[in-house]
Amino acid sequence: MENKSGAQEYRGKPIICKAAICRKAGEPLVIEEIQVDPPKAWEVRIKIICTSLCHSDVTFWKMDRLPFPRILGHEAVGVVESVGEHVEQVKEGDLVVPVFLANCGECRDCKSTRSNTCSMGGNQLSKSMPRDGSSRFRDMKGEVLHHSFRVSSFSEYTVVDVIHVVKITRDIPFDKACLLSCGVSTGVGAAWKVADVDQGSTVAIFGLGAVGLAVAVGAKQRGASKIIGVDLNPEKFKIGKKFGVTDFVNPDTCKEKPASEVIKEMTNGGADYCFECIGLASSMAEAFNSSREGWGKTVILGIEMHGSSVTLNPYHLMRGRTIMGSLFGGIKPKSDIPFLVNKYLDKEICLDDFVSRELGFKDINKAFDHLLAGNGLRCIIWMDK
Amino acid sequence: MENKSGAQEYRGKPIICKAAICRKAGEPLVIEEIQVDPPKAWEVRIKIICTSLCHSDVTFWKMDRLPFPRILGHEAVGVVESVGEHVEQVKEGDLVVPVFLANCGECRDCKSTRSNTCSMGGNQLSKSMPRDGSSRFRDMKGEVLHHSFRVSSFSEYTVVDVIHVVKITRDIPFDKACLLSCGVSTGVGAAWKVADVDQGSTVAIFGLGAVGLAVAVGAKQRGASKIIGVDLNPEKFKIGKKFGVTDFVNPDTCKEKPASEVIKEMTNGGADYCFECIGLASSMAEAFNSSREGWGKTVILGIEMHGSSVTLNPYHLMRGRTIMGSLFGGIKPKSDIPFLVNKYLDKEICLDDFVSRELGFKDINKAFDHLLAGNGLRCIIWMDK
Repeated sequence: MENKSGAQEYRGKPIICKAAICRKAGEPLVIEEIQVDPPKAWEVRIKIICTSLCHSDVTFWKMDRLPFPRILGHEAVGVVESVGEHVEQVKEGDLVVPVFLANCGECRDCKSTRSNTCSMGGNQLSKSMPRDGSSRFRDMKGEVLHHSFRVSSFSEYTVVDVIHVVKITRDIPFDKACLLSCGVSTGVGAAWKVADVDQGSTVAIFGLGAVGLAVAVGAKQRGASKIIGVDLNPEKFKIGKKFGVTDFVNPDTCKEKPASEVIKEMTNGGADYCFECIGLASSMAEAFNSSREGWGKTVILGIEMHGSSVTLNPYHLMRGRTIMGSLFGGIKPKSDIPFLVNKYLDKEICLDDFVSRELGFKDINKAFDHLLAGNGLRCIIWMDK
Repeated sequence: MENKSGAQEYRGKPIICKAAICRKAGEPLVIEEIQVDPPKAWEVRIKIICTSLCHSDVTFWKMDRLPFPRILGHEAVGVVESVGEHVEQVKEGDLVVPVFLANCGECRDCKSTRSNTCSMGGNQLSKSMPRDGSSRFRDMKGEVLHHSFRVSSFSEYTVVDVIHVVKITRDIPFDKACLLSCGVSTGVGAAWKVADVDQGSTVAIFGLGAVGLAVAVGAKQRGASKIIGVDLNPEKFKIGKKFGVTDFVNPDTCKEKPASEVIKEMTNGGADYCFECIGLASSMAEAFNSSREGWGKTVILGIEMHGSSVTLNPYHLMRGRTIMGSLFGGIKPKSDIPFLVNKYLDKEICLDDFVSRELGFKDINKAFDHLLAGNGLRCIIWMDK
């Protein structure tokens, strides 16, 4: 059988390949040759086909309390180059997406339909492999390079624990599969699995980045009657329309009223479902205040960027409101990513407009520039270009 | 047909009877003769059989920003004496519980299974009847006496809108029916309808008053494996055991650790369901912090007594936690109170231990003294004793 990764010769041996290394917080990544060790037991070595840049990469790229040098990147798709002992779920040549969130399939959380916080997951910010706590990366001087998000996809080859690897069909284009490995799945999952948006309902989405727009895609597919986008950038409404956003609120241009008051007026008392996709405690509270009495649900997707607490009026809770959060939109990677792939292939969700530009690996720093400038949504970085 | 209220002769006319009037915030109620007008359209005049004292009565008895004189009381059972035009759901002689929460059966919330905040409800603190904004009570000098909680059960006769009246079977003892008109239904409802406690789960209850203990009754009936009571009063554990509480945490005696840390240790990471039945923002946050990752649900039942906000760590929300609130434990009065009556008659829930003492109407102020001193749970006040 043909090994589609084309790397059969390296099985059990280190591979020398290119990676974009983050040597200092906030400084351009440096593309260097590195050595990638073979996978140990329960590990998978993946040849990355393409990767994309998510806001969390930028957050952790800037964070100087984390150890350096490290290899960032966690949205990607690739082909299994080789597997370690005991790996049975995937084999050489399989198309896979690596995922930051673990899914062992064995723990109480994995066995429950209510949770996706696998107990095997540990700390996603850990600098090393989950089972033996060591790294599979070294630079050509022998210095250890740390892992990120359990994935480290800004490298031609990476090693990932099998609980972070999901096999998918080759029917899906690589770039669409890449989107489903993090941000887009988070948004669609939040609409479907966490909020469970229903036909005819009203939805308010705070923050129209890729995650917020993916919420709109999920809500539209469920038949929401009104999908209100809330963003300070007026350009976002035009973009949002492509994804199902029907109405727009710019908090800057309704200054005499908070956005929540405007949304209450637009929805006859408050939206059925509110989503915070920014990561600001103040907009989490605004999202909550925009939800209707009786059954209003607010879902927190954004990671609070200043470590602030969210402050709620308990009387508003008492009137039948709910606030909840989720990592990765409640998605259980091993079962739900293949499900989302099928939804894409069945044309129930459209992912085409999430890709704003494509770059070769050598230009990876340009992807950071575009994201920081707020230019477009996802940038696909092809490893072989 | 016999009119069990024994008052057929007054149909359409005012009734002179005794009521306990609150003339000034925090001062003893004064029992006086008053005049109760006949019910107008969509209204029901009820002869109260017994009433009991709930913490909310005490809260609003102390509150001097509300208008006086007023007739408090909202936990009660009685017999329909007469009905106004258009009233079809109940008739003279029916046994009924009046309820502070409206249930019109026609609005979007009433028609939904997800909400119990009837849009017809308006403000429960209103001083008058909901449809025409006037009072049905006057003292013998002609001064208007205001309504409370849409019920005003501290009177031999009261007038209540039909959307606040629930017909129940005469098979249930009066005192048990009285309990189900507010506090006990709130607790059991929160466990069953809001949290949906499941077999084998772990539960933490902050505040072991009647509502908290009713949560324990509901959780025990659902087969919870561990029901942790949290209270500053060490006597409450002995009492709590009768209602299903299996473990006890006294925040005063675990001062080196917050109660949430102790509960996490007792439950291998956090309780599946947490309930706040006190009404303090700080204990709402502690309840939330006691809930497990993945699917931990916190239900707020206590009305925050200082108007404070509740402060949450958004990262804890992100790990799959939910916080929600409800009025009246998610109970839809017209359908769920008869359901709870049946659960009592089928011996699925035991209500006997909620009644700590019984008094005659003339001693109603003693019920306040006992509640303020924290002596026991519910005090049943019989109108004809």
